[in-house]
Amino acid sequence: MIFLRVTILGAGAMGGALTIPLTEKGNEVRLWATEYDRRVLKLLEEGEEHPRIGVKIPSKVSLFRPEQLEDALEGAEAIIIAVSSEGIKPVLEDVRGLVDAAHKIVAVTKGLIEVGGKILTVTQTIKRLLGNNFKPTYVSGPSIAKEVARKLYTNVVYSCEDMKTVSQIKGAFETPYYRITLSTDVIGAEMCAALKNVYAIAMGILDGLAEAKGSSMENAKATLFLRSVAEMAKVTKALGGMEETAYSLSGISDLLVTIRGGRNGMFGKLLGKGFEVKEALREMARRGVGVIEGYVTAKRGYEMLTESRRLTPSEIPIFYNIYKLLYEDGELSNFLREVFSL
Amino acid sequence: MIFLRVTILGAGAMGGALTIPLTEKGNEVRLWATEYDRRVLKLLEEGEEHPRIGVKIPSKVSLFRPEQLEDALEGAEAIIIAVSSEGIKPVLEDVRGLVDAAHKIVAVTKGLIEVGGKILTVTQTIKRLLGNNFKPTYVSGPSIAKEVARKLYTNVVYSCEDMKTVSQIKGAFETPYYRITLSTDVIGAEMCAALKNVYAIAMGILDGLAEAKGSSMENAKATLFLRSVAEMAKVTKALGGMEETAYSLSGISDLLVTIRGGRNGMFGKLLGKGFEVKEALREMARRGVGVIEGYVTAKRGYEMLTESRRLTPSEIPIFYNIYKLLYEDGELSNFLREVFSL
Repeated sequence: MIFLRVTILGAGAMGGALTIPLTEKGNEVRLWATEYDRRVLKLLEEGEEHPRIGVKIPSKVSLFRPEQLEDALEGAEAIIIAVSSEGIKPVLEDVRGLVDAAHKIVAVTKGLIEVGGKILTVTQTIKRLLGNNFKPTYVSGPSIAKEVARKLYTNVVYSCEDMKTVSQIKGAFETPYYRITLSTDVIGAEMCAALKNVYAIAMGILDGLAEAKGSSMENAKATLFLRSVAEMAKVTKALGGMEETAYSLSGISDLLVTIRGGRNGMFGKLLGKGFEVKEALREMARRGVGVIEGYVTAKRGYEMLTESRRLTPSEIPIFYNIYKLLYEDGELSNFLREVFSL
Repeated sequence: MIFLRVTILGAGAMGGALTIPLTEKGNEVRLWATEYDRRVLKLLEEGEEHPRIGVKIPSKVSLFRPEQLEDALEGAEAIIIAVSSEGIKPVLEDVRGLVDAAHKIVAVTKGLIEVGGKILTVTQTIKRLLGNNFKPTYVSGPSIAKEVARKLYTNVVYSCEDMKTVSQIKGAFETPYYRITLSTDVIGAEMCAALKNVYAIAMGILDGLAEAKGSSMENAKATLFLRSVAEMAKVTKALGGMEETAYSLSGISDLLVTIRGGRNGMFGKLLGKGFEVKEALREMARRGVGVIEGYVTAKRGYEMLTESRRLTPSEIPIFYNIYKLLYEDGELSNFLREVFSL
């Protein structure tokens, strides 16, 4: 059995949740809080429950404050990046110089990142900022943090170019309820993890339309779900990944969890009920909802795909028409006509 | 444009719903009620809404009583079989002699049927009882009848060995909101349509477990969903169909609609909450729920697969362990251990 000294960067829901299986397995776990985690950190230092996952962090986990990054990384063998997509660049800049390619880097952050005017995936961002010799592992699949924290069965995918490293990580992290499936398709996992939020907006639109009509629209949603997965497969393939990834835990299963709730669906629902894009954004802000990942990803994904020139809009009509709805014409009727010919 | 004289056998939810797109498209539509539809028929004759779909049947649809089967079929070009799986044998025996292979037979009935001690699919049953020269079309995919009746977007699959015939049917039946995709994989469509109800029980079990634990178990459900689709693909392939069918509207999308509600999930939920199988069946009866399709199909599917000898239980662990839970040991803990190694 391998045990690792693991530093988790970011004390949000998933950073907190991962302390449970990782300590149970015998790893030495440190949890570093970012500036945004100060309120959570205070509660954890007082021995309270983590407010976002409803459980206490195991007492053997060492807690580190934002100013203690260097101490937190001292002697670490594995580093889990569990900050938000907006937080990843600053964190990587902070750790540069403190880590080298011998560290096992594991990223759970989802989304597409803008780096120097170019749109990159999370692991591309890590390589760009830390060095191309890094071989990060990317975590995807259906994983609501609260369920991981409560030891409820979860099967995630760890994707890495380097099978030897990721096998060691699996050996150290896997428990009976936190199962790890390995994959070599990093780009596929990242694109599905990012794009699912855009497709969740599309499905939310149908929920909003259904509510406006006083009916359900489950037939249409089930069709849209399947076509969304097919688009994720096309995007994955176009960027050099494997279509199968979209039809795996990283695609179908994660999309399924995403549409069961969450802010992307909520935002889409407002659009489906007839809110204009700006109104819907204001209403989300009024409800205290922060970044809507799918809204951001629609634009970044569009830029990335336009630059790659490997897919035409007609090959990915749902994605393209969500982008158009959100950033160009704002007409729901156009979205429905283009996607459903209605 | 082709118009057909269509007789729908069975005035239940789907039989009633299909009158809407079919008349709109200009077909001449007759609706024949079985003995079980007498109460519905009375309402329809009085011009009331169909109680199961909440809309009125178009006035140009001719209604026929159980004793008027011969009149209902007089001059019909297409015959839609829309009775329950329990009703299919009696209806086929009644129509034998009144129809020949020139009739376009379209079946929307789901399930596996016992015919003379053997388990058959719906179209196999049609061929067995009407003649091997019949080439029935099978309808599958996500299609909640109420949504079809309300003209809400629905995309179904019409599968047939004879592409010429099914193309004509598509030409006559398709509308902007009732879309028809064609396929040649009849056995795949039928097996997915039948087995989905068994997998819906499995997913209901997780809902029941989650409720008992006071949490959600969406991560586990999303994993179970994917594995269920993979099992449907294996069964389809083993019986001569195409694996892709399980990853299409007939598999993924229909399973998605099925787990959004319905009696199979409700039954599974009781099991997950700790009801023994007999208790759960009694509770379902107490709630006024009739046949639980997944319960029946678990047994018939098991017999069919055992006889075909093309799959071992370990290749389809979810299906097999639901069968075992329902008909052999009744132990939920065994199901969870075998399926999730928990």
